[in-house]
Amino acid sequence: MPTIVVDVMPKAELLDPQGKAVAGALSRRGEESFTSVRIGKRFELTVEGEVDETVLAAARRVADEVLSNSVIEDVVGLEVVE
Amino acid sequence: MPTIVVDVMPKAELLDPQGKAVAGALSRRGEESFTSVRIGKRFELTVEGEVDETVLAAARRVADEVLSNSVIEDVVGLEVVE
Repeated sequence: MPTIVVDVMPKAELLDPQGKAVAGALSRRGEESFTSVRIGKRFELTVEGEVDETVLAAARRVADEVLSNSVIEDVVGLEVVE
Repeated sequence: MPTIVVDVMPKAELLDPQGKAVAGALSRRGEESFTSVRIGKRFELTVEGEVDETVLAAARRVADEVLSNSVIEDVVGLEVVE
């Protein structure tokens, strides 16, 4: 069954305290390759049947209105897999 | 600066109550295109300099040991962008 993957990240200009905490943990473990970490969400929406324009429009609407909070987050990806 | 994106999802055989809640909310809004929703995490690790084999190996190690809990989650993607 096709799946639509929606990626949501905190806006670049906002602090991401959860990401900062992970970056600190990596640094304490001696992992020095990474200068910053940001944490967002990945949604997998399963679609029964074909992904046509109507379904894609619904996915975009849902991504903007339900899956993300546009005050603090951006939808950075929306793609069909399988 | 290059970024390594790590995608982590709850294991397929486990319930995802957060995803179930979102699926219920979509259905109540009249969005009938989606049969299920699963919610995972998307990590963006910023790398200063080049992404060589050492950095990639570090990213895989960190994805397995820090960013995901292998009891309940799978690392479903690890890719370099930019």
